[in-house]
Amino acid sequence: MSVVVVGSIALDSVETPWGKRENALGGSATYFSLACSRFSKTRIVGIAGTDFPEKGLDLFRRHNIDTEGLKIVEGKTFRWGGRYKSNLNKRDTIYTELNVFEKFQPQLPRSYRQQPMLFLGNIHPELQLDVLSQMERKPLVGLDTMNLWIDISREKVIEALQKVDIVIMNEDEIRQLTVTSNVYEAARRLIKLGPSTLVVKRGEYGAFLCHHNEMFSVPAFPVSRVIDPTGAGDAFAGGFFGFLGKFSNPRAADYRRAMVYGTILASFLVESFSTDTIDSIIDEEIENRAKELIKIITL
Amino acid sequence: MSVVVVGSIALDSVETPWGKRENALGGSATYFSLACSRFSKTRIVGIAGTDFPEKGLDLFRRHNIDTEGLKIVEGKTFRWGGRYKSNLNKRDTIYTELNVFEKFQPQLPRSYRQQPMLFLGNIHPELQLDVLSQMERKPLVGLDTMNLWIDISREKVIEALQKVDIVIMNEDEIRQLTVTSNVYEAARRLIKLGPSTLVVKRGEYGAFLCHHNEMFSVPAFPVSRVIDPTGAGDAFAGGFFGFLGKFSNPRAADYRRAMVYGTILASFLVESFSTDTIDSIIDEEIENRAKELIKIITL
Repeated sequence: MSVVVVGSIALDSVETPWGKRENALGGSATYFSLACSRFSKTRIVGIAGTDFPEKGLDLFRRHNIDTEGLKIVEGKTFRWGGRYKSNLNKRDTIYTELNVFEKFQPQLPRSYRQQPMLFLGNIHPELQLDVLSQMERKPLVGLDTMNLWIDISREKVIEALQKVDIVIMNEDEIRQLTVTSNVYEAARRLIKLGPSTLVVKRGEYGAFLCHHNEMFSVPAFPVSRVIDPTGAGDAFAGGFFGFLGKFSNPRAADYRRAMVYGTILASFLVESFSTDTIDSIIDEEIENRAKELIKIITL
Repeated sequence: MSVVVVGSIALDSVETPWGKRENALGGSATYFSLACSRFSKTRIVGIAGTDFPEKGLDLFRRHNIDTEGLKIVEGKTFRWGGRYKSNLNKRDTIYTELNVFEKFQPQLPRSYRQQPMLFLGNIHPELQLDVLSQMERKPLVGLDTMNLWIDISREKVIEALQKVDIVIMNEDEIRQLTVTSNVYEAARRLIKLGPSTLVVKRGEYGAFLCHHNEMFSVPAFPVSRVIDPTGAGDAFAGGFFGFLGKFSNPRAADYRRAMVYGTILASFLVESFSTDTIDSIIDEEIENRAKELIKIITL
């Protein structure tokens, strides 16, 4: 099934203990769509400025990502600068320039509106709800969000959650949203709000899935050097959602295998700055890591 | 196979968001032996003062734990007081009174010296080495340690590591010992020091095993209320090591299943103060949770 994704397109400047990269391609929709397109036809919805580099568009084309929904408008692309601490678990934001992203009003091209899968990346929940209303038949819908929206627009986040099938969030966010410190208790409460499926991302500790009251847990793939974790959660979500798209009616076992593939895409992503690895890996490398990860969880 | 364990015996006063308990039975050897005795005959080596309550000895007897190596001497038992923060991941030590534990010079009773399995709980590495030298034939040896000994006696910790088969440590300790922030890289370096098996405990995130270059990862069992995490790592180690004792020559698959049982014993332990749950659960409850956990990691 083909996937429509809406989210941010950014130019990031990132510094980690392993080096730095200036104005490299980033943003949630970018990472998501590159991971997703490994498994399913992907259509992107986003906004960028006239400074957006041609090589960014090339990258999307190379991965057969439909960019009809990517609007280039007068002005500068969303820019973010950050610096990671030595253990790579914490980062400081140096600057955030929303630029053209500030006025982002996503409009789905006509050709996107009947697609069977929609992923609402991390944008304001009002915009997520608006995009959802543009779809002309009910797709399988996934959603991500962030602490900022929970802080300033909690009710709208909850309204959006109630209208989707799959929620993918990190553990601190579900704790914050449900005001519950125990993560499993937080997951139970979140599921009561409506979604049939919840994926809780736990960074270097992996992720767990709650799907129709069944749990599945997967560790992170053990990479020996994390170069830049920016976008790992988006690559996970893209790998997970894209893998589900391989099935016209994904079953419980497909959801579990999707957790493995999300994990593998995230593991490649963190091994380079920006999109370098995720752009260049071949399918066989993905399959080899998936096999290795499955061995790690097999009794 | 029967297991000899040496470690601390304590009376702990613990406060968590769920309440407090004064002078309750604790200490690494206590938690370890209660978990271990579920699967294998267990013999304890430790020291306590004349204030040690009769119900503590009753508890060991009820679980068929051999207390010939538990010395009661004039003075007070080791006491520790601590308070956990709201998310239960951090604690403050309120007081530490070593008392009779300060002069602990473990002596193995004659009947212990030919036993096939030995666990060197968290005591000074010099004492661990001394206990090991008292064994009259080479047992399967496990070892735990802590940040304090790595700080003040790093060379001795490494010497001890090199003489054992199984090292069980938490992730911050292996990072500290190997001076490596990436936990998988730290694990690789630790294994190069000698032990064929390493278990890395990660608290609420579970644990992973490296056994002859094969990895296995297991999540924590999802309990919805952690009452008191004190001793969870010791209960894990006891469940793990005790389960191995069921086999005269444990194989790779037994090590993996031992990870599951260590996880389950730790999950029961955290659901009450002190040893309450781990004392009272029945074998069927352990088996049921083990089955549930296996479902959580089965594709």
